[in-house]
Amino acid sequence: MNEPKHPNLASLEDATALREFSQDQLKATALEIRDVLCNLLATRTAHFASNLGVVELCLALHCEFDFRKDRLIWDTGHQIYPHKLVTGRYSQFPTIRTQGGLMGYPNPHESEYDLFMTGHAGCSVSTAVGLRSGDLMVGQGDRHTVAVIGDGAFPSGIVFEALNNAGELKDDLTIVLNDNKMSICPRVGAVAGYLDRLRSNPYYTGLKTEVGKLLEQIPMFGDPAERFLAQMKEGVKAGLLGGMLFEELNIRYVGPIDGHDITLLRKYLAMVREMKGPVLLHVVTEKGHGYKPAAADPVFFHTPPAFEDQDGKPVTRSSDGLPAFTVHARDAIGEALAADEKVSVITAAMCQGNKLEPIREKFPNQFFDVGICESHAVAFAAGQCKAGARPIVDIYSTFLQRSYDQIFQEVCLQDLPVVFMLDRAGLTGPDGPTHHGVYDIGYMRLFPNLVVMAPGYAEELGMMLRFALKQDHPCSIRYPKASAMKCSRSVPAIELGKSEVVRPGEDGTIVAFGAMLENALAAAELLEQELDVEVVNARFAKPIDAAMVRRSITNGRFVLTLEENTVVGGFGAAFLESAVAQRLDTRGVQVLGLPDTFVEHGDRNDLLQQNGLSPKAIAQRCREAALASEAAVP
Amino acid sequence: MNEPKHPNLASLEDATALREFSQDQLKATALEIRDVLCNLLATRTAHFASNLGVVELCLALHCEFDFRKDRLIWDTGHQIYPHKLVTGRYSQFPTIRTQGGLMGYPNPHESEYDLFMTGHAGCSVSTAVGLRSGDLMVGQGDRHTVAVIGDGAFPSGIVFEALNNAGELKDDLTIVLNDNKMSICPRVGAVAGYLDRLRSNPYYTGLKTEVGKLLEQIPMFGDPAERFLAQMKEGVKAGLLGGMLFEELNIRYVGPIDGHDITLLRKYLAMVREMKGPVLLHVVTEKGHGYKPAAADPVFFHTPPAFEDQDGKPVTRSSDGLPAFTVHARDAIGEALAADEKVSVITAAMCQGNKLEPIREKFPNQFFDVGICESHAVAFAAGQCKAGARPIVDIYSTFLQRSYDQIFQEVCLQDLPVVFMLDRAGLTGPDGPTHHGVYDIGYMRLFPNLVVMAPGYAEELGMMLRFALKQDHPCSIRYPKASAMKCSRSVPAIELGKSEVVRPGEDGTIVAFGAMLENALAAAELLEQELDVEVVNARFAKPIDAAMVRRSITNGRFVLTLEENTVVGGFGAAFLESAVAQRLDTRGVQVLGLPDTFVEHGDRNDLLQQNGLSPKAIAQRCREAALASEAAVP
Repeated sequence: MNEPKHPNLASLEDATALREFSQDQLKATALEIRDVLCNLLATRTAHFASNLGVVELCLALHCEFDFRKDRLIWDTGHQIYPHKLVTGRYSQFPTIRTQGGLMGYPNPHESEYDLFMTGHAGCSVSTAVGLRSGDLMVGQGDRHTVAVIGDGAFPSGIVFEALNNAGELKDDLTIVLNDNKMSICPRVGAVAGYLDRLRSNPYYTGLKTEVGKLLEQIPMFGDPAERFLAQMKEGVKAGLLGGMLFEELNIRYVGPIDGHDITLLRKYLAMVREMKGPVLLHVVTEKGHGYKPAAADPVFFHTPPAFEDQDGKPVTRSSDGLPAFTVHARDAIGEALAADEKVSVITAAMCQGNKLEPIREKFPNQFFDVGICESHAVAFAAGQCKAGARPIVDIYSTFLQRSYDQIFQEVCLQDLPVVFMLDRAGLTGPDGPTHHGVYDIGYMRLFPNLVVMAPGYAEELGMMLRFALKQDHPCSIRYPKASAMKCSRSVPAIELGKSEVVRPGEDGTIVAFGAMLENALAAAELLEQELDVEVVNARFAKPIDAAMVRRSITNGRFVLTLEENTVVGGFGAAFLESAVAQRLDTRGVQVLGLPDTFVEHGDRNDLLQQNGLSPKAIAQRCREAALASEAAVP
Repeated sequence: MNEPKHPNLASLEDATALREFSQDQLKATALEIRDVLCNLLATRTAHFASNLGVVELCLALHCEFDFRKDRLIWDTGHQIYPHKLVTGRYSQFPTIRTQGGLMGYPNPHESEYDLFMTGHAGCSVSTAVGLRSGDLMVGQGDRHTVAVIGDGAFPSGIVFEALNNAGELKDDLTIVLNDNKMSICPRVGAVAGYLDRLRSNPYYTGLKTEVGKLLEQIPMFGDPAERFLAQMKEGVKAGLLGGMLFEELNIRYVGPIDGHDITLLRKYLAMVREMKGPVLLHVVTEKGHGYKPAAADPVFFHTPPAFEDQDGKPVTRSSDGLPAFTVHARDAIGEALAADEKVSVITAAMCQGNKLEPIREKFPNQFFDVGICESHAVAFAAGQCKAGARPIVDIYSTFLQRSYDQIFQEVCLQDLPVVFMLDRAGLTGPDGPTHHGVYDIGYMRLFPNLVVMAPGYAEELGMMLRFALKQDHPCSIRYPKASAMKCSRSVPAIELGKSEVVRPGEDGTIVAFGAMLENALAAAELLEQELDVEVVNARFAKPIDAAMVRRSITNGRFVLTLEENTVVGGFGAAFLESAVAQRLDTRGVQVLGLPDTFVEHGDRNDLLQQNGLSPKAIAQRCREAALASEAAVP
């Protein structure tokens, strides 16, 4: 029998045995984890550099706590891989991010070691404060609570809200600040500068003793000066030892310490575990640690495409050759910025995901990365807009939920012409339910003044952005993480609230909103011998084209509305609202979209197919609808 | 001719002339403002104590800046009254908070001095950072930018996000922290403690010189100790002089200073106006200043009911004698907390508005006020829930928008049985569009797992809460700021997704969701001689009662759905989605609700009437629907 390739990992049923591992075994396990990560991730796109960075931290945490009982929240969750490998999921690990396999984020359905399914940044401290409070309420106060949060997520407003609350409640809580000097992109913001200063402080650089000596030499005076001096010493200590920002909020600050030294980590974790009240342990790690190319370029290696060779050189992947909507969006943004220096683009740390790096380089004065601070991003845009600039807010559909109240108050209520570009609006594939952007049609169309658009094909995206930048009202444009079909026709201009008939037909109509137009056309092709199906590119969910609604319903035997969004409250609902307001007969209408359940992770096309949104499935729905309408004829 | 009662205010066409006022004139103007506030507010419910607190600050700001050009944002906006009085709105001031009159919040439609219509807390710094950035982009860098934010709003996460960004951008910006030691309720959280320490620091208490002397006496050492000492001095300075929390984020900290000394305020404002980069000026004010009863009880006097006598004793107001839904909610929460110590209630600084004070006193271990931090409130609740507690999140409909992403990720995605109580779900009356809660049906029903309920009458609210606390899924209960009708029948138990026929009828059906049931019944009564109208209490918007939808449509000649919510994506849309999924004929269905525009401020009943939701208007819609259906019969 061959020796298993990763004997330590293979031996772990769960994380319990780790606590008995020797120093050497732990180091060997760290090597095994890195080996698994490098080998596996060569074959698929996955989160990489962040996982390499937390190997030792993860091992040390599981050595010093028992997270079957104690509480561990990995903020955001894309650094969860080592944790999965040591909590009984080593053998399943090769399935990660494939449908039916392990999720690339924490998942309570996989393991009792995962408490919350997450993917959005910054909530770990809040849920940890809540867990601790709940444990105390139900008499489980012997459970320890740990939140691990990266420096990229740290400036998210909710973290500050949680610290404000934790500092008042004073319940025991360990916050591990995993400082790798990176968000997904290079880190921005004043907090980043603060952490830089902390890292360079004398304590961390080993001069603690000298500082102590200096403090002793400060002369003491009689009262009332003594009172000041006590304060002064505290001030000096905090100023030199760092952490004032946290200490001021009643959060004990410890660190910074080297996040790749397991022994040191264990010592400090054991110490903070026993401390009373909330404690922040500042741990410095290197994103990509242990794999040279990743440590040298952690932005690329955040979620690199599959690669094979040892130098980390990416392997060219096959594709359908069509650029993604994201690329068209980026190019359109670039053109808009070049055409008018009053146009700006605002990203919330998604420079890489939105492919904005060339924009950042070329238009530094019109490019704003505010960090993972979506609420601020939108209110900031509203301010710019009020001053006469024309900001474009470029945020993933799912993350824009974090600005919902600012979309309401700062933008729609003021009727400011901010432009929202909603990337990843639809199924995002292997990331799964935390990242699918399948609610935005519903949530964006609720507020007055907001125009809600989606392009059906590549050319339309730039046209819609140019249209939006000319409006006096806020506009949003949604598009999925998918390649964009080219249009072979001459493209009619964008007119407010006007749809476009892409393929005329007499038997029934498919009204597609956005990129689902491609599947609608394919379905019509499939049906060519049976049914003459009209295909409409809706373009607008708000204002919806009321004439199009009437024509669709009165012209054929059935109407299928089609969207890559939940069927609840989305484009289909907008269509029905318009139909009913016009007293039209909706018995031939069917609303097609994603179900009112959380859709798991997997390949986008597979997921579309499984949810009845493949061309074949749509064609079948047309057939059935045509039959049903015949049966219903009086 | 009589001398005007407030000669200085009456003389102001806009704020320009203030800049030429003498010291004495400014003091006289301050007295006039307080007189106006006290006299006017005796006659109606309005924001009071906060406005008394900022009189001098407002005058000093207008003396040192020209806000026709410079930018001024009052955070939240309920402290805007003095500003309105000195910016050309003195004569209109008696109309404030009445329909067609001045709004009780900033309103750009009223004056060029108001930039953003606001009401939700914490966004001022973000919009100010954006305004400054926009002014620079469009070549208007000579405009100064000022945000005035209260200490209650300060812990809102978005403020921290904005500081993080401002500290990096380093654009000129004045943030005035108006520290009155209060939120609407007594302030909570660690930031509050920090501000307390700042206020008691030696600099503020006048011992600046002594501190300076002490610093000079610290001995100096040779290098490398010198380097530490430099840092040490800075540390001592910041530790003693305060503001480290801000200084660490590259925000210059100045203060604290007395916010009722106009001369001092002007001196400091003139100074910070000329400083480079972002500056925070810490101003200490007294909520209710100048009116003894208000200063002594600023919680009561935040928005006191009308009162007349000089002791501030409230005058008993006439009412219909029925307690508000809020009172029933509070009582039901109290019963739930008493029945099970695992049940908790979480408020985001709305203890007073939600009438929770008795709960806070009686159940201190089950009551959590997290401050104006709605995002944290929901994630914190999710943590408690995961630990086995049963949290009730009690937040106004409009403010819950600030937790939208946490409702998604921390609650619905985990399917945690958190209970949401959405107070002020509907028209909030004199507060206006910033506070109307008319989007929640739409935004809550989008996410899987969430149950969306609304009680039609008083008894149902407690029943729904008890029902919700027994569910394994998240539940929400919405109710308006209105008195709750009593039910004269025996009330059928709440069953998931089941509606209730309150009044049988054969000619048509009104399906009311929530408190609009009262107007539906009144409309049916009005029609008694003409039409036999069925009235249904929908109870659930999600899951909607599909059998009820079928019955309503097939049973009579028309269906009116009725909700105190926008007609976009709300209960009516849910009804249509169900009808179309069942292939029912919707031609007789009409969706009644609020229009897809922002509804202004005014009396709730007046606003309902103007928007076609009075019993009379509903009855008329029934008549028309009945006629239309007759005409349509083939």
